[in-house]
Amino acid sequence: MSANREIPYKIYLEENEMPKQWYNVRADMKNKPAPLLNPATFEPMGYEDLRPVFCDDLIRQELDDVTPYIDIPQEILDFYKMYRPSPLVRAYCLEKKLDTPAKIYYKFEGNNTSGSHKLNSAIAQAYYAKKQGLKGVTTETGAGQWGTALSMACAYLGLDCQVYMVKCSYEQKPFRREVMRTYGATVTPSPSETTEVGRRILAEHPGTSGSLGCAISEAVEAATHQEGYRYVLGSVLNQVLLHQTVIGLETKTALDKYGIVPDLIIGCAGGGSNLGGLISPFMGEKLRGEKNYRIIAVEPASCPSFTRGKFAYDFCDTGMVCPLAKMYTLGSGFIPSASHAGGLRYHGMSPVLSQLYHDGLMEAVAVEQTEVFAAAEQFARVEGILPAPESSHAIKVAIDEAVRCRETGEEKTIVFGLTGTGYFDMYAYEKYNDGQMTDTIPTDADLEQGFAGLPHVPVR
Amino acid sequence: MSANREIPYKIYLEENEMPKQWYNVRADMKNKPAPLLNPATFEPMGYEDLRPVFCDDLIRQELDDVTPYIDIPQEILDFYKMYRPSPLVRAYCLEKKLDTPAKIYYKFEGNNTSGSHKLNSAIAQAYYAKKQGLKGVTTETGAGQWGTALSMACAYLGLDCQVYMVKCSYEQKPFRREVMRTYGATVTPSPSETTEVGRRILAEHPGTSGSLGCAISEAVEAATHQEGYRYVLGSVLNQVLLHQTVIGLETKTALDKYGIVPDLIIGCAGGGSNLGGLISPFMGEKLRGEKNYRIIAVEPASCPSFTRGKFAYDFCDTGMVCPLAKMYTLGSGFIPSASHAGGLRYHGMSPVLSQLYHDGLMEAVAVEQTEVFAAAEQFARVEGILPAPESSHAIKVAIDEAVRCRETGEEKTIVFGLTGTGYFDMYAYEKYNDGQMTDTIPTDADLEQGFAGLPHVPVR
Repeated sequence: MSANREIPYKIYLEENEMPKQWYNVRADMKNKPAPLLNPATFEPMGYEDLRPVFCDDLIRQELDDVTPYIDIPQEILDFYKMYRPSPLVRAYCLEKKLDTPAKIYYKFEGNNTSGSHKLNSAIAQAYYAKKQGLKGVTTETGAGQWGTALSMACAYLGLDCQVYMVKCSYEQKPFRREVMRTYGATVTPSPSETTEVGRRILAEHPGTSGSLGCAISEAVEAATHQEGYRYVLGSVLNQVLLHQTVIGLETKTALDKYGIVPDLIIGCAGGGSNLGGLISPFMGEKLRGEKNYRIIAVEPASCPSFTRGKFAYDFCDTGMVCPLAKMYTLGSGFIPSASHAGGLRYHGMSPVLSQLYHDGLMEAVAVEQTEVFAAAEQFARVEGILPAPESSHAIKVAIDEAVRCRETGEEKTIVFGLTGTGYFDMYAYEKYNDGQMTDTIPTDADLEQGFAGLPHVPVR
Repeated sequence: MSANREIPYKIYLEENEMPKQWYNVRADMKNKPAPLLNPATFEPMGYEDLRPVFCDDLIRQELDDVTPYIDIPQEILDFYKMYRPSPLVRAYCLEKKLDTPAKIYYKFEGNNTSGSHKLNSAIAQAYYAKKQGLKGVTTETGAGQWGTALSMACAYLGLDCQVYMVKCSYEQKPFRREVMRTYGATVTPSPSETTEVGRRILAEHPGTSGSLGCAISEAVEAATHQEGYRYVLGSVLNQVLLHQTVIGLETKTALDKYGIVPDLIIGCAGGGSNLGGLISPFMGEKLRGEKNYRIIAVEPASCPSFTRGKFAYDFCDTGMVCPLAKMYTLGSGFIPSASHAGGLRYHGMSPVLSQLYHDGLMEAVAVEQTEVFAAAEQFARVEGILPAPESSHAIKVAIDEAVRCRETGEEKTIVFGLTGTGYFDMYAYEKYNDGQMTDTIPTDADLEQGFAGLPHVPVR
């Protein structure tokens, strides 16, 4: 449609071009993601079973695998306008640096104070909690992006926000904590003495620096033990992927405006919220047989749930109080090496993405953190954005593919998700700058130990 | 032209609407800013006098007070496209929160990795250094925004970048330092043993935590003692204000698109780079008698150069190696209280702005840091952006004016400059969150001490 030179560095949609509905990819999946199971009885959990933990409207979204489009409430649309649409950037400078015939685009979600895409779901979850008349919400945060996003959304709506922050993060990222406090949130290092499960974990593992799975258990307990509170989660769940489709829908509208059809779509994957959101509209076309795209999930070699995990029912948390989900998992006891600085540390993976991967509809690749930071630095120096370590996993593979194009002469169009900025990850960058960063790949024995903790769910 | 509701939350210009020339407000000033003087002879300094310190093309811009528009080179325009145009935001959420009939807009310059507007001049200065065939540049940085911006620009162009960082900042902001290192810059805490002037200052004031004026002296010495290096500066100078007019020009184009005419333009002022850049096109209309605007400079009460300083020739640096400038100043020996966390610590002020203020063309107001942080927090919670302490000075006064409109019922249109984000200022926010922040207003005796150091320049 347009010649290359006419494509601006940044494609911004007009406010009236922003999506007004989220897209529910499950509606187009032949093999639906498996239902959540009760961790005690192994029975599928329905609406009523989930109500003590989750907000009502969010449970409806969680369980709905038939409605393709779900309206975004006006209040959320208004909030989105504060920091969206996010730009789809043509990486002209990176292309030139790599001397590649490939055309590289990235959807940049870092231009908001939470520093990542997490705000897209945070405001939605806070909105439904407020609508239900709740006093507040509880959650966990690892790197801190989700906690920051949720505290921003809660401040905006006047909801109380209680964040359990993985202890090593709490200590290494005091500034993240202060951003949350500035937005009025209470931040507790996890495991803590404030919950039963926290006290149990502390007794069993004195001196532990915590994990996401453990912080989830504490946040769930805190929600269910306080009147007027529910638990909310920043990734993995179907509802989160649904909200994050605003990323992919905007991307698709922007590409369509310029007649651009990607060959390759790349995203980093921890719990899967960004990747699922980015690819959903494209995956929908693929599922309906309208188009074909190569889709690549990139994960850290130190937490390789797709590439070395098992597709099985597993606990979502360490304390085993959450529903079981069928997903690619390393076992809820798996904790990546302490020297892993690159984020994406969750032991499992979104059930939607797990099913799609299992069905051969997408690929996955694991990369090591030193090469991820090298790619991050290269990107920062030419594109001017200091990326989050998480996002840099996608950068690494996008660069690899663009270099391959240089070798083959193919003019592929590559789209990747740049989920956020690295301003609160400078400890990790410092390690890299000082040449102190190492790669941390789990051995087969490490993985076997994680798998040993998988629950024995009867086959139906 | 348009009804209010039609104005989007964020006005983005198209790439082809971005300014292609900087605007030189000095061309429209009847009373030109006074010339720079040689610190030894008190003689005005011309092109040849300044060449050992500054880049040739930048000296031409520094001395040119007659050419109203100066072309922006294509390479700089291309770099601008990486992170510009910046949005002009309609602060709908803040207006609602304040229940004011005022219409509030802010030009947000923080959506780039340097976190501020400083990149606008950094790329220009690095470009001219590169064009001149230099190996590298030296500079000083206080809060770190300028150093980060310059390191980004130098990384992009392949220039060496040596930054002298005020020691207390270097220690309190290790993450700022790491961002600069990630962009390949060398960062030295100032005062240091690497320069003669640094060693002298350390001998006279052992244990000093440094100051901007002292870091400038070191950077100038480093530039003049290395073959192929020049010194560059992020504020105060005429050339910097010139480059920063891209802010005001974009703002004016965006306002004109929607037929919006501001009543009031507000900006924070340290050395004056942001304020000068924002107001220049509007001031030009005022100087030419085409329009009238109220223009307000906001400065910290702990470093009140406009409101309590003298309009006099003074040293730009502590070591007294730089040219003398005629400006509002507190004396080059003045150092704001160590408990001042709000930035904008420079003892002087842009000669252009000083002259305009002296001629009654703009107002100035000083605000205290606790009220600045209170305004910052209020803003962050409704507008979703965590502002830099510097920028928050403008927020404070914009809110005050909007509240006044609520009381009088006036529907004034307020435009302010939001220069940057506070992600690297969380120590200061922590202090505020913990209730530990105090106000730090210099006594008259403090000021007299600063004034005592003013040079005795013969009147011509």
